[in-house]
Amino acid sequence: MGRVKPKVIGVVGYHNSGKTTLVEYVVKALTEEGLKVGYIKHDPKGHGITDREGSDTERLSKVARKVALLSPDKITFWESSSFSPLELVERLFSDCDLVILEGFKSLRSVPKIALGEVPSEGVILRLEERPKDYERVLDFLRKFTRE
Amino acid sequence: MGRVKPKVIGVVGYHNSGKTTLVEYVVKALTEEGLKVGYIKHDPKGHGITDREGSDTERLSKVARKVALLSPDKITFWESSSFSPLELVERLFSDCDLVILEGFKSLRSVPKIALGEVPSEGVILRLEERPKDYERVLDFLRKFTRE
Repeated sequence: MGRVKPKVIGVVGYHNSGKTTLVEYVVKALTEEGLKVGYIKHDPKGHGITDREGSDTERLSKVARKVALLSPDKITFWESSSFSPLELVERLFSDCDLVILEGFKSLRSVPKIALGEVPSEGVILRLEERPKDYERVLDFLRKFTRE
Repeated sequence: MGRVKPKVIGVVGYHNSGKTTLVEYVVKALTEEGLKVGYIKHDPKGHGITDREGSDTERLSKVARKVALLSPDKITFWESSSFSPLELVERLFSDCDLVILEGFKSLRSVPKIALGEVPSEGVILRLEERPKDYERVLDFLRKFTRE
């Protein structure tokens, strides 16, 4: 038997009617009481700036563990928590064929492409800095993904 | 039997070694070939500004379907796709007790708190604009979440 689904409630009102201030208050209080509360904001026009200080989603990110902005052709999602990159792959990228991690030099368990002489474990392809032979990398990744 | 996990590869190199430009190129090409490619960028210092034009994650968002920035105490995640809010709840908020949707006036199937006279279906609590009685809403939501 699966767990109970979250309860879902909307807050509606005209612009400047106090929606976000109210939601901020109740999310903070309910979170302090031990409930896990998420917040999804509608962005029907797709303005897209999402984490500017003072924006609704930035304000809610400080009190809700999970926040999303739903724009017409994309979602932006924040979760306040510590993850390892491989946990993140499992939770959010499990339907991908290939996931590229950029900048995790000390992550031992992952094979790597290195640009330049940077020291790192698990390097399986090393290129010069600012490489020009993109086709070689592409071919390498095609085989890597399918092997 | 579960599906095959995504292949995971790292790209490492010193600052300005051309990592993002390379990744942008290969992600675009592999996506055009039909692969589903994700990108996770490491943000060890937690700078946090994530979708400014020209940032690495903003550049990759244009070519990868899924992009994440992994900061010390939070993740920011983008997915280029159209979702309904309830799909989003199911996919990303399923472990919450309560999810608050802000601004989805025309979503019929969800009960709502309305601020002011805004017309909307499914209103189960209506308050004045800029309400002061936050405790009333809090109490309402406590019961709503547990019912």
